[in-house]
Amino acid sequence: MAHRIITISREFGSGGRTVGRHTAEKLGIPCYDNELLEKIAEESGLAKEYIAERGEYTPKGGWLATAFADRSVNGLSVQDYLWTVQRKLILEIAEKEDCVIVGRCADYILEGKADLLKVFVFADMKKRAERIVKLYGERDDSPEKRLRDKDKRRAAYYQFYTDMEWGKAQHYHIALDSGTLGIDRCVDIIAGLF
Amino acid sequence: MAHRIITISREFGSGGRTVGRHTAEKLGIPCYDNELLEKIAEESGLAKEYIAERGEYTPKGGWLATAFADRSVNGLSVQDYLWTVQRKLILEIAEKEDCVIVGRCADYILEGKADLLKVFVFADMKKRAERIVKLYGERDDSPEKRLRDKDKRRAAYYQFYTDMEWGKAQHYHIALDSGTLGIDRCVDIIAGLF
Repeated sequence: MAHRIITISREFGSGGRTVGRHTAEKLGIPCYDNELLEKIAEESGLAKEYIAERGEYTPKGGWLATAFADRSVNGLSVQDYLWTVQRKLILEIAEKEDCVIVGRCADYILEGKADLLKVFVFADMKKRAERIVKLYGERDDSPEKRLRDKDKRRAAYYQFYTDMEWGKAQHYHIALDSGTLGIDRCVDIIAGLF
Repeated sequence: MAHRIITISREFGSGGRTVGRHTAEKLGIPCYDNELLEKIAEESGLAKEYIAERGEYTPKGGWLATAFADRSVNGLSVQDYLWTVQRKLILEIAEKEDCVIVGRCADYILEGKADLLKVFVFADMKKRAERIVKLYGERDDSPEKRLRDKDKRRAAYYQFYTDMEWGKAQHYHIALDSGTLGIDRCVDIIAGLF
């Protein structure tokens, strides 16, 4: 019997990670977010900071820049090597137990391989900007610029590895505006559906 | 104080109309769907069949074909005249009472003018095909072809009048896959959020 997995895809700054963690707590199942990062680091030998940045985002210079700049591992670019390790670990986790997995294209990787509830969490620019300033502080770039950059690079990453459009409602079972509905209501709805 | 309005945008065959009607019943508020069609017919003098077809879809021949074929009313194309009447009536309804409004770009028309809960209901091709065959019977064209045609024309209509992309999660507060979640659960979630 396939395990039941909740995948949370989220816009940067939407609180999707918090939604995932609270949902898992409420349901008494594990949430793979930072834990997944640590597993990937252990298995791949890559630094956690690199994985956090490059396991969901295209590099800042675009793909072409990487093609030349990346060293390779086993004949793969580091980016592709990371994708391979990530994919393998996500499949292993899904074999093992019911859980919540945040990000990392788990929705795509597990399609047809687990009993999935695919969730997308997003919020408008203003709410996300407030949230990232509160969480990560001010930077040289405005929060809106940081968000637009993150959005663009995450969408490109998703498109590249899944060949699907990021944020299209039809890819998910449910899509929730955490900015309007609030984190707690998102958690209640998702937990209620499990 | 602005009235609370639930707008339901839906893919053809997803059961979004039923979700709207049941949600309204559950909340004890009116649902404008067929009622809206009748109001528009009365106000515009156009036939209900024409409104049902052309108040949410581009014509089959594309815009160019219409530009030449349409007679005009008050200097507007019939399509634009219909949009104007639809818009006016939706704004009037929103001034009057809390309610559910199905389709007709009400989400866009009422943005900033009411206390909105914007819902998008969709389902995968297979589930929608089963549903339209059950509801409307077999036709010469396969149900999948009929759905693709409807999807394309509704998306084009929405894009033309709102300049926004149809079905993008971020346009709504919540997007629900009625095929997986089921009509009743969609109704419970929406009514719970009201």
